[in-house]
Amino acid sequence: MTTTTINVSGMTCGHCEAAVKEELGALPEVTEVSVELNPGATSPVTITSTSELDDAAVRAAVDEAGYEVK
Amino acid sequence: MTTTTINVSGMTCGHCEAAVKEELGALPEVTEVSVELNPGATSPVTITSTSELDDAAVRAAVDEAGYEVK
Repeated sequence: MTTTTINVSGMTCGHCEAAVKEELGALPEVTEVSVELNPGATSPVTITSTSELDDAAVRAAVDEAGYEVK
Repeated sequence: MTTTTINVSGMTCGHCEAAVKEELGALPEVTEVSVELNPGATSPVTITSTSELDDAAVRAAVDEAGYEVK
């Protein structure tokens, strides 16, 4: 298992958290996503995956949810 | 047409706005819901309806969405 932590900006509530979890969770290697919500700042998002994640794919998934990797 | 304005607390983002709009819009008399989002404060929500709205039903719908009428 690989663990990747990214910082995501713009998340303010549980709906935001759910949207990010859903998009990242749709990546085939991803087995778990946990979010430490920090409204008004960047939120650390920890992603557990079966193999090393492609940085561009992670950024694209977060962007798809409507947020940005900082 | 009747217009009712309520103040809703706890809404922080467009997802919150969508959740409140969805629940209020499900009330049979409601034809339009507009939200002036104020993250960190109460947000005025203006509801247009074909007849006078039941206060308890409005509160229940907002509560169902996960927020509170102030």
